Amino acid sequence: MHHHFEDFPAGAAFDLGHELLTAADITGYARRYDPMPFHLDEAAARHSPFGGLVASGWHTGAVVLGRFVRTLLARSACQGSYGMDEVRFLHPVRPGDELSARAEVESAQPHAKKPHLGVVSFLLTATNQDRTPVFRMRTRLLFTRNSATATGLAGADGGREVTA
Amino acid sequence: MHHHFEDFPAGAAFDLGHELLTAADITGYARRYDPMPFHLDEAAARHSPFGGLVASGWHTGAVVLGRFVRTLLARSACQGSYGMDEVRFLHPVRPGDELSARAEVESAQPHAKKPHLGVVSFLLTATNQDRTPVFRMRTRLLFTRNSATATGLAGADGGREVTA
Repeated sequence: MHHHFEDFPAGAAFDLGHELLTAADITGYARRYDPMPFHLDEAAARHSPFGGLVASGWHTGAVVLGRFVRTLLARSACQGSYGMDEVRFLHPVRPGDELSARAEVESAQPHAKKPHLGVVSFLLTATNQDRTPVFRMRTRLLFTRNSATATGLAGADGGREVTA
Repeated sequence: MHHHFEDFPAGAAFDLGHELLTAADITGYARRYDPMPFHLDEAAARHSPFGGLVASGWHTGAVVLGRFVRTLLARSACQGSYGMDEVRFLHPVRPGDELSARAEVESAQPHAKKPHLGVVSFLLTATNQDRTPVFRMRTRLLFTRNSATATGLAGADGGREVTA
């Protein structure tokens, strides 16, 4: 399976599976990337507005993106991302929470200037084990089209417009 | 030093220092959170639109947020984040790049319903060692105000509105 632009029509939805976050996952991420007391240490977190340890919001986003990449993108003709919009932390993620993630195609359009490429806008969402929404964001990704071959076109795009 | 809402007036700017990304940093993050070939493996990346290994965009964001937390937020009365907007990957980040990060206050307003809190909107940006912009995003954070004490108010807010 190697998904191209044409495999992501508007309205398509994809189950990205689930992932459990342990206290060690939460504090490990926090030590490296987001050392706020309420992400790092249970005792300190008890005195925070959250009343206990919560995952960094950016960590939750990383887990959702990880599901997205493992389930769909790594086997696709994805050429990179323009970025994200409306990243929202809707509910605290706590140790032991199991997140279920989902991707929906909101729009899919051929690239205005490069006919071998297409731009797909996804809404990514995650709920916890109680089906409470905990996270959402939008992201726009660039894919090669089915008619095009990725290798022949790589040089032309040069990775300038879309960078990660 | 313990920054409250009043320490972040509109127009204030903060140097968040710099951080070097090694190939091991880039591939280590990618293995855990973003296993696309062009983040994972130099040989595979050579055949990608980027022509070589590049950092995951979400990894770059994590590094910038890490600088923000270590430089400012961890010593502040920050009560959490509403989320992020306009996350943009402006230029590839490659092994050996040293990112310099900066935060600017775009607006600061008392919370509409909770007089002990204030909402601060930051523009976070990063450039590489050539001063090329590589990343930017906006984020809105909640802080207690100078007149308020964090502990007495924690229960009232309950961490529901702002979750990470």
